[in-house]
This record gives sequence, C-alpha cells and structure tokens, in this order.
Amino acid sequence: MVTIKDVAEYSGVSVATVSRALNNSGYVGEKSRIKVEEAVKALGYYPNEVARSLYQKSSKMIGLLLPDISNPYFPLLAKGVEDYAQQNGYMVILGNVEDNPEKEDMYVKFFSQYNISGVLSASAGKKNNTYRVPFILLDRADEEEDYSVSTDDKLGGKLAAQAILKAGGKHAIVMAGPKNVSGANDRLSGALSILDNGGLSYKVMETNSFKVEKAEITAINLFETYESFDSVIASNDVYALAVMKEAIKRGHKIPEDIQIIGYDDMLFSRLMYPGLTTIAQPAYDVGYQGAKMLLDLIEKKTVKNKKLKLKPKLITRNSLR
Amino acid sequence: MVTIKDVAEYSGVSVATVSRALNNSGYVGEKSRIKVEEAVKALGYYPNEVARSLYQKSSKMIGLLLPDISNPYFPLLAKGVEDYAQQNGYMVILGNVEDNPEKEDMYVKFFSQYNISGVLSASAGKKNNTYRVPFILLDRADEEEDYSVSTDDKLGGKLAAQAILKAGGKHAIVMAGPKNVSGANDRLSGALSILDNGGLSYKVMETNSFKVEKAEITAINLFETYESFDSVIASNDVYALAVMKEAIKRGHKIPEDIQIIGYDDMLFSRLMYPGLTTIAQPAYDVGYQGAKMLLDLIEKKTVKNKKLKLKPKLITRNSLR
Repeated sequence: MVTIKDVAEYSGVSVATVSRALNNSGYVGEKSRIKVEEAVKALGYYPNEVARSLYQKSSKMIGLLLPDISNPYFPLLAKGVEDYAQQNGYMVILGNVEDNPEKEDMYVKFFSQYNISGVLSASAGKKNNTYRVPFILLDRADEEEDYSVSTDDKLGGKLAAQAILKAGGKHAIVMAGPKNVSGANDRLSGALSILDNGGLSYKVMETNSFKVEKAEITAINLFETYESFDSVIASNDVYALAVMKEAIKRGHKIPEDIQIIGYDDMLFSRLMYPGLTTIAQPAYDVGYQGAKMLLDLIEKKTVKNKKLKLKPKLITRNSLR
Repeated sequence: MVTIKDVAEYSGVSVATVSRALNNSGYVGEKSRIKVEEAVKALGYYPNEVARSLYQKSSKMIGLLLPDISNPYFPLLAKGVEDYAQQNGYMVILGNVEDNPEKEDMYVKFFSQYNISGVLSASAGKKNNTYRVPFILLDRADEEEDYSVSTDDKLGGKLAAQAILKAGGKHAIVMAGPKNVSGANDRLSGALSILDNGGLSYKVMETNSFKVEKAEITAINLFETYESFDSVIASNDVYALAVMKEAIKRGHKIPEDIQIIGYDDMLFSRLMYPGLTTIAQPAYDVGYQGAKMLLDLIEKKTVKNKKLKLKPKLITRNSLR
C-alpha cells in the first residue's frame, strides 16, 4: 500500500506538507502543491479515510438527528443536508432519535467512537456540550446554543393570524405545539400578538406533540372540546389535513363553515382539493444552510450569522374564505 | 489510553482472544470471556471504533441509498432501516442518490474509504459487484442480485385491478411506472393479467418516473391524452392525489365519474377526504427486514429467504365506487 510517507519522499517535501496539501488545510506553496499532486498520480496514492480519521481525530462524516422522519417535513430538511454535504465530500449519518433520550445516548456514543466531525440536530434532546464537536441546532433556536438555522417562527405565527383575520374569522382555535419546542412557542406568541388586537375571540388548544400519529385524535378532540368556532390555526399541515377530514365528516364545509390554515407547505397541501392555505417553511433551505454552517465551522471558516433565521411565507390556496 | 494489549495482559489471554470476545466473532471459551470482561471493566477499556475499523477492515456502519427521499414512501422505509440498525449497534449513512450515477459514484468511493460494512439500495443504480460488501436490494428485486427485500408487486397489481373490476370500472387507464424498476413492471403485468380477462377496456399510460415533481404534469397529461375513462390505476398515492385534484378541477366527481386507486398507503391517503383506496406497501417492514438481512449477512448468519417478498394489501376507503 502506498502511504503518505511514500508521497512525501517522492515529492521531496515533508509529510506535514503532503497532509496539508491533501486536506486543503493550512498554507502550502504552489510548487509544493504541484509536486504533491504529481506524486499522488505517479504512485496511485488513495487515502484511506479510516486511517486519516484516526490520525486527525475527525472524519468526513456528520450526524443528522431528527425527531420524526415519518413527518414529511423532515425528509425535505434531510434532503437539503444531504445535498450540501455530498456536494462537499461529507457523508451524513441519519439518526431518527424521536426525542428519545436513550436512543440519542447511543448516537452520542457512536459519534464519539467514529470521530464524527459535527452534528446537526433537529431533536429537542441533547445539546452542544454533550457532543464536543461543532454543533448546529436545526429548525429551532435556543438561547443557550451558539449556532442555529431555523425559520422565523414568530413571523410565521403572525402571518397565519393575519390571514385568518383578513378572511373574516370571528372565533378561532389556535393549536399550541409542544412546549419544549421553541419554534412552537414563537409561532404561538406571534399569532397571539396579532389576534389580541384583531377584534375576534380565540382559544388556545394545548397539544403536546407534532407527531403524525397524534393528528387524528387531536382533530377529534378539537371538535369534542370546543363549540362554535369558525377558524383553526393548525400545528402543521398534517394536523390541518386531519382537522379538514374531521370537519367534512361532521358535515362542515371548508372554507364556508370552518376555515383552516396549516404550517409547513407539504407536497400533499398543494395536491389536495381544496388546496390548503399554509405558511411555507423553507425546510430544504434550513437543511442546506445548516449543513453549510456546520461545514464552515468544521473547516474553521468564519460564520457571520450564527443564528440564521429564514423567512416563512404565506401560500394562499382555498382553505380560507 | 487503555489498549487491547493492556486488556490482554491483564486478563492473561492473547490479543486475538480479546478481539474475538469484544467483537463476538469466533470461539472464545467461557472462562476467557469472563476474564476479558473483568479486565475491560477494571481498566475502563473503551474501544475506539475508528481504530477497530482500520484493524478489521469493517465498521459498524451501513449505507442506505434512496432514489428520492422527498417521496413520502422512502422515509418510512428509512425509519425501518434506522430502527433495526440502531437497535443492533449500527449507524446508517444516508445517500439520497436520486438514481444519479455521478452521485452514486461518490458514495461508492465514500463507502470504500470508510470501510462501510454493507449497503442497502433502493436505487436503480449500481449493484452488488460495485460495492464488494454485503449488499441488499431494497424495494425491488432483480434476477442478477442474490439478496433483496421487496413487496410482492405482481400481487399488488392484481389486487388493484381486481378492486377496479369489482367496483364496476368499464374504461380504465393503467399508469405504467419507470421501465427500469422491476416492481413497476411486476405491478403492470399483475394488473394486466386481471384486466385482460375482466371484460373491460383499458389503456396503458407510459410514465417514466415515480418522482413527486412529475405528479401534476402527469395528471394533466392523463386528461389531455385520454377521453372517456372512468377508472385510473395510479403509479402511487402521490400520483393518485394529483389525478384526483385534476379530476375535481375539471368538474368530475370522485368516485361517481372517475374512480381512482393508489399504491403505497401514505399518511395523507388516510387523512384526506374522500379517503384514497390504495394498495398498502409494508414500507417500514421492507426497511426493517432489509436491515435485518444485511446485518445477518455482515455477521455471517444464515439467511434462509434470500429474496424476501412481503405481501401488499388492499386498503378500502372511498375513492372507488
């Protein structure tokens, strides 16, 4: 096997210079770089990444922790992460940790054992200080975390409430998402800041999960618990879809009797009929920009905006009057 | 740092025995195993997996190649893979290769550089002989591949056609999926074997993709190309949803004027109204069983059923008469 020492000998430079040239890290003079490249070609040197990882205590692998990959929001985010990582020579380890501390514990151990270079986490679980590698919070921000890429959820909540007001809602139900998710709290406070001055009555429905398995039972609870509402601000598009189905089953017309706005802008929201008016989250971009920020950190580049907030936008279809 | 040599010295057995005991591979006597376990505890030995990978030329990592993670079928499959892998101490590398040969080439290189232990591929791309590690084809079978876990798509096609016949369809359109996907061909041949003897007229609509981006344009093409049909066997639930929307937009009633059956059984298919009658694919189980088969191969256990076919089933909702 050709080693890095052979490359150094052939090219007449030091092993450290070869290493810097091969890893694109630190200064290497133009002449030396050309010599190293010639040696690599002449000798057929092919770096073993496992050996490199051991030597450098880092790998070209990043971890991606998701709370629920069966929620169609997260695959879009994962797609953005994978695209940026793959384009830049990194592999993505998928950890569907489901906000389960024991499951995440295993990934903490895995990531340390395999010298994973950085972690992107959309999970409500462990934070930066657990992983001891560059760490970006995805899809949520947190005061205690230095780096995050998320949607401006307060703005998202405002946009949803404004749309309901504009469509003439008189009695609204606002679904509050899980309390441990900062984005859910931001959306709620954004929505309420508009509704409080909007001249309509509203009630906040506590929901403790965004999980898709809970969508149908939450929709049933909504109709069993509350009476005489004409507008629903749903937790997300999956929940909005479940509310629409339950409403139609109970003989209500959409949007005439009950109008509904979602959050996320999923594929089915566009394809269903009536189309779901919703707040589009830039899921793919959150993943893509998150991976970019993480690789910048790993490669010690400057990150200007450490808490990047991407803007959501209102997508108008036919579920509001 | 405590090394495997320290463990061997402390326990009074050879390094090879310690290695076998730690990796659960090969024979280790009960006494030796206990000694090694005591030494590991006493010394606080914590194996570095990178070093172990280098030594063993394999890692506790498997690759998962998907054609399109934004198609909601594949996240369910990925969830099954991740669950089984995580429960058994393996990490999953996610490669959304999109049936793109250049993208897959990068993963071939990655996987070799990082001593990935095995590959699960739901992509139409490269095969076993490229990766040179245990390889399982997921969600599709192939005569040239030894190992696969897929759905019995011929049965799925039959079930869909039988449901259309039973619901009184007279003029059916059958969407043919991509020709390079064996499952698509199996479904088509299964459906046609029933329709040919069913006493109804049908036409096969060529579609070259399962990709979600093509769903809307395919639905429009369907209505522009064909006249006077009353039944559609759609490529999958996303395509069925797009056909339903286009039908309603054009003033057709579902199922009275046009009845539609899907394939997959997605979350939205259950939550939408009218609910979509469809053929449920066991996506999670395909992933879970695929990961199980792969880990059995990696760990040199016997695999009895090398070409595992899981059964699809008809889910009756309201999109057929």
